[in-house]
Amino acid sequence: MTQGGSRAIDEDMPMTDKQALFWKIVDGRLPAPPCARTLGLAFGDIDPERGTIEVAFEARAEFLNPAGTVQGGFLAAMLDDTMGPALAATLRAGEFAPTVTLNVQFHRPAKPGPLRGFGRVTMRGREICHLGAELLQDGKVVASATATAVIRPM
Amino acid sequence: MTQGGSRAIDEDMPMTDKQALFWKIVDGRLPAPPCARTLGLAFGDIDPERGTIEVAFEARAEFLNPAGTVQGGFLAAMLDDTMGPALAATLRAGEFAPTVTLNVQFHRPAKPGPLRGFGRVTMRGREICHLGAELLQDGKVVASATATAVIRPM
Repeated sequence: MTQGGSRAIDEDMPMTDKQALFWKIVDGRLPAPPCARTLGLAFGDIDPERGTIEVAFEARAEFLNPAGTVQGGFLAAMLDDTMGPALAATLRAGEFAPTVTLNVQFHRPAKPGPLRGFGRVTMRGREICHLGAELLQDGKVVASATATAVIRPM
Repeated sequence: MTQGGSRAIDEDMPMTDKQALFWKIVDGRLPAPPCARTLGLAFGDIDPERGTIEVAFEARAEFLNPAGTVQGGFLAAMLDDTMGPALAATLRAGEFAPTVTLNVQFHRPAKPGPLRGFGRVTMRGREICHLGAELLQDGKVVASATATAVIRPM
């Protein structure tokens, strides 16, 4: 029973560990990884307690298919780089969480330029985690995804 | 009934159309699309009658995640660019086949350098097509995938 507005800590909810690799990158203490720079990743709102994240990407001319739209695989890479950080924000220093499966649905073509990613941890286990994300351009969903990741010691 | 070793043509099996965009790229009559150049795509054996293809990729430093291995999304992009060409080799001029869903399983980490893709058309409908592929490095499968694509007029 809690008193005076204090709140019991949910033991299952990991606390944000600012010494974790993810937060060092977000805070600029470490450089962003090459894949994030290639995709033009920029962080928006990050809420590790809710397991949600908002990110931005930039689709470059190098990502285009013969139809002149973004090759689906690069949209998959952006969705992976939306869900991965949503989970990484909840990891402790010395943990990482490789993606085991990635399932992508393509809704409409995407063109070069900015995209926004909305990701979430839908199930946060001690090892197995389920993730989801949508990728938007001009306010419309261009692709959505689910993924499973497994938390491991680095 | 056929005679003298002649073979009836399977009406459901599309004939290779050398005027199709894919074959113009393979034959060097058109440049490779930007996404293929980014992934270092090179064509090996292509068998449109069996619906199979072998391709090569080059994982670049720009694809690496914080763990120093290839971000899974870029492996997904390679698998998409393995299955897409397997189907594209069977298309007629004026057709294209965008990927609708892409499901990727990650087996082990991939490092920078060469990878080989083996793709196939597992079900070739008039519109809906099912595809599969594996991506190998040093003789071991690093990721596998299935996808569904839909044939449309360009």
